[in-house]
Amino acid sequence: MDIACDLLVLADVVVTQDDERRVIHDGAVAIHGDTITAVGTRAEIEPLANADRVLDLGAAMLLPGLVNAHSHVAMSLFRGLADDLPLMEWLSDHIWPVEKRLTPRMVHLGALLACAEMIASGTTCFSDMYLLEHEVAAAAEATGMRAVVAEGVITTPTMTYATPEEGYALIERLHRRYDGHPLVSTAVMAHAVYTTSPTMLKDSFALAGRLDAPFMLHAAESAEETRQCVEAFGMRPIAHLESLGLLSPRTTLFHCVDVTMDEIALLAERGTAVVHCPESNMKLGNGFAPVQKMLDAGVRVGLGTDGAASNNDLSMFREMGSAARIQKAYRGDPSVLNEKSVLDMATIGSAHALRLPGLGRIAAGFRADMCALDMSCPNLMPLHDPVSQAVYAATGGEVRLTMVNGRVLYMDGRFLALDHEALVEEARDVAAWVAEGGIC
Amino acid sequence: MDIACDLLVLADVVVTQDDERRVIHDGAVAIHGDTITAVGTRAEIEPLANADRVLDLGAAMLLPGLVNAHSHVAMSLFRGLADDLPLMEWLSDHIWPVEKRLTPRMVHLGALLACAEMIASGTTCFSDMYLLEHEVAAAAEATGMRAVVAEGVITTPTMTYATPEEGYALIERLHRRYDGHPLVSTAVMAHAVYTTSPTMLKDSFALAGRLDAPFMLHAAESAEETRQCVEAFGMRPIAHLESLGLLSPRTTLFHCVDVTMDEIALLAERGTAVVHCPESNMKLGNGFAPVQKMLDAGVRVGLGTDGAASNNDLSMFREMGSAARIQKAYRGDPSVLNEKSVLDMATIGSAHALRLPGLGRIAAGFRADMCALDMSCPNLMPLHDPVSQAVYAATGGEVRLTMVNGRVLYMDGRFLALDHEALVEEARDVAAWVAEGGIC
Ligand SMILES: [Zn+2]
Ligand SMILES: [Zn+2]
Repeated sequence: MDIACDLLVLADVVVTQDDERRVIHDGAVAIHGDTITAVGTRAEIEPLANADRVLDLGAAMLLPGLVNAHSHVAMSLFRGLADDLPLMEWLSDHIWPVEKRLTPRMVHLGALLACAEMIASGTTCFSDMYLLEHEVAAAAEATGMRAVVAEGVITTPTMTYATPEEGYALIERLHRRYDGHPLVSTAVMAHAVYTTSPTMLKDSFALAGRLDAPFMLHAAESAEETRQCVEAFGMRPIAHLESLGLLSPRTTLFHCVDVTMDEIALLAERGTAVVHCPESNMKLGNGFAPVQKMLDAGVRVGLGTDGAASNNDLSMFREMGSAARIQKAYRGDPSVLNEKSVLDMATIGSAHALRLPGLGRIAAGFRADMCALDMSCPNLMPLHDPVSQAVYAATGGEVRLTMVNGRVLYMDGRFLALDHEALVEEARDVAAWVAEGGIC
Repeated sequence: MDIACDLLVLADVVVTQDDERRVIHDGAVAIHGDTITAVGTRAEIEPLANADRVLDLGAAMLLPGLVNAHSHVAMSLFRGLADDLPLMEWLSDHIWPVEKRLTPRMVHLGALLACAEMIASGTTCFSDMYLLEHEVAAAAEATGMRAVVAEGVITTPTMTYATPEEGYALIERLHRRYDGHPLVSTAVMAHAVYTTSPTMLKDSFALAGRLDAPFMLHAAESAEETRQCVEAFGMRPIAHLESLGLLSPRTTLFHCVDVTMDEIALLAERGTAVVHCPESNMKLGNGFAPVQKMLDAGVRVGLGTDGAASNNDLSMFREMGSAARIQKAYRGDPSVLNEKSVLDMATIGSAHALRLPGLGRIAAGFRADMCALDMSCPNLMPLHDPVSQAVYAATGGEVRLTMVNGRVLYMDGRFLALDHEALVEEARDVAAWVAEGGIC
């Protein structure tokens, strides 16, 4: 019985993330078009797969491509623009003024920069909320990345829509445009309970239902958000969302730092997913999301970097390491959020949070989205435990290969689907554009 | 007036860490032998430096080599051997059994692996406490790294000494052997208040005085250590050390997680330095060292990774990012431990903690220990703020050049002073040796 296979990838170690969480030594992955058709040892697969091409990675660890379940990729424009500031000062004095001058070209360049960074660090899919989101979608298409994009819904008029109705129409047009696209899909994302009115929250949730798209928003990111929410609505953020009927299996909440045990139980009951963004939560001084408690309660949790303006990098490998370490520090217990849970978050958990069930595993029938770590990097030797190396020791710089939908986007330091030299020049334009505004 | 210069290094950005913390664009660093002789803009320096060789790094950021002020480098042997376990279970079931079988070759290989990792991530100097420390010193010599080494002083007999007197004699021999060595020096390092008796603490401190060497130990690493110290001696760890007369400008304490404001004031008054190891503190569930409070009180603080068995990487770039982020999270304030403070810790602060005043700056008269980041890496673009890129966005994988004492050890992915291929083979021996013990 032959295996349909036009590309056979061989690697010393394959971390499958399949139902048994198999780690296969001397492994092989057969790919046909955009789909994985078989996974096993080289001895099992090679005789059955009459591959046109064989890619033998040797001393490499193959993993499912990491899924960055929350970001604002164009904010790479503002990486390091103004750090170490209180949130409101940072936003009002530094970020908002320059965001007012945003152009489609700048959003496109910021997204390209972010795609390059994510591709080079093993991320194959990202979810994104921003302005001028069609430019983010175009950047994903151009670089070959998988993306879930959304023009953010907020109450005040933006440069892309003056009224809620215009905003919903924009979202619907973007949705239709990418309907059936092999890489790009859309979601409906409201910004947050303090920036999106109850009516707009309800209307955007209803729109998500009509489009059969995921619904997402920032929620319970900080104690200050809770304070404001209680002041405005007499309820904490999760209760406010519940009162509006927004907690459902369609809904994914970003952050959930300031949540109680009762609120966690409610999220589990409603089937609402959460995306954990530990480095952004740390850098903005927002504290610690009780992720282990969420997992214990049965909440599905994915992992994201948030934007590079508040992180300041988009490496999901680094984010995994931070997620595991910070949970132990805050709980005072080294056994919480073990390495397997964290890798699950960055693969299967994120795929679930984005409603993309075909991602996050190296298994037959799943999309051929994978990355490979160079196991001869000194920080990945010796090899006692592959998952530990991926979660705790890798930083992202060890990535040798990134593949999306069966297409190699990055290999051995070279980008195969984007022009790195042009990007270096364009990044100088970005720095000049930001500086021109007299900011920073 | 000519500048003595046999190597002129040019780079788009030079972060000097000099007294004015100058960041020089289009910069030049003149080197004569092992010493930096001049630093300035290319326009200033190039005409005066009749260099034999010119190394033009182009789109790179040159920084002082990072100084890893606390590690157990041979523990790279055990990276990922057993994660996510309570400290005592981890030590007694996994680490100690395999450490009993340690051989000089294994310590040497573990240290070589760590040196390779540190060199590839821009670290030029490390301090180390372990067993069979002469092998660590030999690995530093072999790879061209700068090191401060110490055979650890503990009360129970070790494989290298049966009595305290044998231990002190061993330390003294190692000290004499490296007296005047250009790269390797020694310190006297006691393990901790719970493993080294009061008599041995006092005797080893006195030995440090006789050798005019720094004295260092783990202290106040966890609440459990405090509890045990109070039970055994009726005092918390810092008070215990004070009662023994050990807090002095010669002394450097590793960790200081569980310290009060009064204890911080005492450390400042005594001129005792501290080395912060945030990733190890997090991973072992020990919590958060109040580093900003120490700096505010005038305590000198350096930065270290601790061993790869409890981190699990040795990238000082990643450690800087974690130090900055974790302090903001634990204090609930994004403005604490800003990027400049963190870079100071990893350079000038660590140099001070190791009593190596000639390190940590790119300035005339300082040792030519430097590293350079490739600023065309997507995560380091665009460039708004060089120090922010180094502290928050770099992971270590962006390092293009590492130089110690004027000698290039690493450049553009290639090790110039160690055999990487041999190391890959040797790492397989290490994995087999650990597995043979039936551990893991
Ligand atoms: Zn966000
Ligand atoms: Zn230590």
